[in-house]
Amino acid sequence: MEVIKGFPATSQTSSQLNLATIIRHAARNFGRQEIVSRNQDGTPFRYTYADAYERVQRLAGSLSSLGAVVGDRIGVLASNSYRNHEIYFGIPGSGAVMVLMNPRFTAKELGYVVNHSGIRFIFAEEEFLPIVEAAAPMCETVQGYVILTDKKLEDVETSLSPKYSYEDSLSNAVPSYDWPNLDETSASSACYTSGTTGKPKGVYYSHRDVYLQAMMYALNAMITVEDCMMQIVPMFHVLGWGTPYAATMVGAKLVLPGSYSLDGLDDLIEILVKEEVTLSAGVPSILRALLNSLLQMDPVPDLSGVRFLCGGSEPPLSMMKGYREATGGEIVHTYGSTEAQAIVTLNVPKPWLNRELSEDERWKLKKKQGQIVVGLDVKIVDTDGKELAHDGETVGEILVRGPWVLGKYHDAPETKDQFTEDGYFRTGDVGSIDTEGFLKLTDRTKDLIKSGGEWISSVDMENEIVNHPAVLEAAVVGLPHPKWEERPLALVVLGQEFKKKVDNKEIIEHLSRCFAKWQLPDEVLFVDEIPKTSVGKIDKKLIRTQYVDIYEAG
Amino acid sequence: MEVIKGFPATSQTSSQLNLATIIRHAARNFGRQEIVSRNQDGTPFRYTYADAYERVQRLAGSLSSLGAVVGDRIGVLASNSYRNHEIYFGIPGSGAVMVLMNPRFTAKELGYVVNHSGIRFIFAEEEFLPIVEAAAPMCETVQGYVILTDKKLEDVETSLSPKYSYEDSLSNAVPSYDWPNLDETSASSACYTSGTTGKPKGVYYSHRDVYLQAMMYALNAMITVEDCMMQIVPMFHVLGWGTPYAATMVGAKLVLPGSYSLDGLDDLIEILVKEEVTLSAGVPSILRALLNSLLQMDPVPDLSGVRFLCGGSEPPLSMMKGYREATGGEIVHTYGSTEAQAIVTLNVPKPWLNRELSEDERWKLKKKQGQIVVGLDVKIVDTDGKELAHDGETVGEILVRGPWVLGKYHDAPETKDQFTEDGYFRTGDVGSIDTEGFLKLTDRTKDLIKSGGEWISSVDMENEIVNHPAVLEAAVVGLPHPKWEERPLALVVLGQEFKKKVDNKEIIEHLSRCFAKWQLPDEVLFVDEIPKTSVGKIDKKLIRTQYVDIYEAG
Repeated sequence: MEVIKGFPATSQTSSQLNLATIIRHAARNFGRQEIVSRNQDGTPFRYTYADAYERVQRLAGSLSSLGAVVGDRIGVLASNSYRNHEIYFGIPGSGAVMVLMNPRFTAKELGYVVNHSGIRFIFAEEEFLPIVEAAAPMCETVQGYVILTDKKLEDVETSLSPKYSYEDSLSNAVPSYDWPNLDETSASSACYTSGTTGKPKGVYYSHRDVYLQAMMYALNAMITVEDCMMQIVPMFHVLGWGTPYAATMVGAKLVLPGSYSLDGLDDLIEILVKEEVTLSAGVPSILRALLNSLLQMDPVPDLSGVRFLCGGSEPPLSMMKGYREATGGEIVHTYGSTEAQAIVTLNVPKPWLNRELSEDERWKLKKKQGQIVVGLDVKIVDTDGKELAHDGETVGEILVRGPWVLGKYHDAPETKDQFTEDGYFRTGDVGSIDTEGFLKLTDRTKDLIKSGGEWISSVDMENEIVNHPAVLEAAVVGLPHPKWEERPLALVVLGQEFKKKVDNKEIIEHLSRCFAKWQLPDEVLFVDEIPKTSVGKIDKKLIRTQYVDIYEAG
Repeated sequence: MEVIKGFPATSQTSSQLNLATIIRHAARNFGRQEIVSRNQDGTPFRYTYADAYERVQRLAGSLSSLGAVVGDRIGVLASNSYRNHEIYFGIPGSGAVMVLMNPRFTAKELGYVVNHSGIRFIFAEEEFLPIVEAAAPMCETVQGYVILTDKKLEDVETSLSPKYSYEDSLSNAVPSYDWPNLDETSASSACYTSGTTGKPKGVYYSHRDVYLQAMMYALNAMITVEDCMMQIVPMFHVLGWGTPYAATMVGAKLVLPGSYSLDGLDDLIEILVKEEVTLSAGVPSILRALLNSLLQMDPVPDLSGVRFLCGGSEPPLSMMKGYREATGGEIVHTYGSTEAQAIVTLNVPKPWLNRELSEDERWKLKKKQGQIVVGLDVKIVDTDGKELAHDGETVGEILVRGPWVLGKYHDAPETKDQFTEDGYFRTGDVGSIDTEGFLKLTDRTKDLIKSGGEWISSVDMENEIVNHPAVLEAAVVGLPHPKWEERPLALVVLGQEFKKKVDNKEIIEHLSRCFAKWQLPDEVLFVDEIPKTSVGKIDKKLIRTQYVDIYEAG
């Protein structure tokens, strides 16, 4: 897109949108607001934005002592803790790039990301050291490891070297820091998508991106200083969907539950009630599990006034109704992606639709992904790229454009065709837009499997299965699962001579060299033939229909 | 300020923050939301954001037909009407600069602004033609006049030439427009301050400035699609304080009352009640007059849930209490300037202060200008430029820095000393900041009275005089005194029923509850009217000239 210069303005053009501004603002205006974090041992840690800001400044200062300079990439593997919240501001504010790494990556994927990004230092929470240790031999650029722990450094057992203590580094630094006035188009942070084409792809968010997204998010989700936001979305996912930045910007109370698992949701609920949480966000699988735990309580906690933003995939109607009817809580459907920095649409009610629609129609509307947020352009196009009508019926690929949307993947020229000439990002999602501007997703162009909020690439898995010498053909599809949303099923055609000689255990073992344990298919079925479409492509739609119930029993 | 480049990000750097985006967004997401405008004859005009957007596109298209190109400056003299709201988007969106002109300017001032800005076209509402006609002979650069009227062009009597009809131009244009992707640092609009140094000074707002300010404003004032915003602040004042942009961004219902006068406030109240207004903004003089009209009604309208942002000068406590007690309406104190694009602080309650403070303390807090909004840096400095403590006591000059703050006046090198080397704008205001971040203005640097080496705050004194139940308005100035350098003089306007019943002794007695004996004014004069500037502020320059000799006799 050509950028056209007009008449010069008289404003302070050297004033840049920087992430340090957000935490400085929180400390200045909301210094006494609380941040509550849950330690590894389950005990609460409490401090204020003023306290946090002092430590953020210490952190930024400690980076220079470490030898980090403006532009350095620093990897982060951390849970939803107060230290991670400090890192969210301290690393980008200093001019370095915070590269968020998914602890569920395989060692190979992690090593790839480290080398692709050129990461110089890794900040890792103690619980994630095993994965870092496994990847370390592959990491070519790393010069040191900073460990987030309550323990003394000498008590942390690890092969990583050189190692530093996060807490010692902060203690040794001074409690104030002179923030550099960073060009706002500089990268503040990065996330790598597990993607569909095998290698993770890097999305590098500028300071401007994240600042604008935080302000837009707080405005569209109406987050204020009166709110208490609990960070359920892992902070290694798309900047935690931007909620840590949006909540800090408006001085909302923050609750950071540390590491949690689907088995420990009662603890999460206890915190939610005790800290008077009013806002959270998560994928349907976690929110559904949370609802199940809530329903088993007596009495069921009153969550009226609590909004749960729900994205990643469509929240089932039964879940949305379950929240409202049993707890008073409200599910707000949202849609986004790593490439669009989490939020493209939010399903916010309109006064006139609230007046006009019946209750059933309002529920139906809540299932839509929502309205496009201010600042973004979204269009739906046919396979020729022609823009389609917004009539709520016509379906096409969804393209997104805007100040915080990806313009290109980092150092991945082969992905050029995911961007249009007029500056749009091809989401790979398919849907319609109605006359009121509500987006409704119907499908994905690519066959990604969504399990517990994480992606599994069916194409990658098929390719890897076929790499096994006994295999002729394979198809992998995602099928509905009551707990994980979707789980992979693999159909495998063996060579004649291998039939009855290779079992599914062997296929799983083969896959586990390249895939994390949670990504492995629950079922491997040996078949004589893979269903194909008329043009010879695997007919995934048909496979899904045939096996739709396979995991529904749970 | 040096700008430091970091690691490159991967975002769409060609995506610019443009004002056309705001109205496009409103039409897309809130197309059915209503805009209500009051015609000159008092009848209402109603349409929607979708309708408005069609006309905005026609307007942008008509500018090309007129011969206007990107970067052209276009003067605007218009009331708070739907046409002005269209102009707010159509002119900047096309790439031209909307130069807002105050119809209360003298012909000479207007001519100066036109020539200084190099204005090519003037858009003027019919009622303001006399002032444009008076200035026209001085205007060297103007090539045409577009008249905003319901009449046919041939029925408009004017000496201006060539003249065009706004409505005809729109009818002749097509209902869609391909917006240019303007560099966001380009000027979108401009305001000229009447200032104190004689010549008006030009502040040229970039698209980025206005977009960021609108988003920040909507977020900080918590404006949503559920709101109905009535535009009381004249739209030629600092972009109407930004409310037209903020309200449009979130799809709030808009009420544009056209031209109104202090004598016709009953009409304004009728609209306010009928359209269910929830948000408005104005200076204390209009809000006080509005309150007086409200109090004379039987029953007094219920305005609970209505917020009135009040800026320009400090709202008297009696007025704030009057609104709450008699109507349920809430005054929200705000502070800003043309140079900082209207909003620097907003007095938004904090939950912990609401819990801790007594009612009296909360009222006292509401009198403060409020908390600095996100994105701006504010510091208070002594006469050597040294930063002062934020202890709520220490008083210094207020400096402001931020993305939408003035970096220099347009083509006015002689004003260079109003900016610091580290990029701050010197507001000329004096005040303190407390530990909770609330700014409290005590004075303008030029409005402080220097008596025997000590300072007396004329603003505090004015506010205290106005707290006397008999007083409508007051002005306090320092005048030359042979012994004390300066001594205060108070001009007081009494309510009709108190005239000749209250004497200066009573005013002095009233003041002595709050002021030291040496601070009390030597003279209190009762007058029928306080001299005002074209923007409605007390004209202290004029008062000083009129009474310059009053103490010189000694």
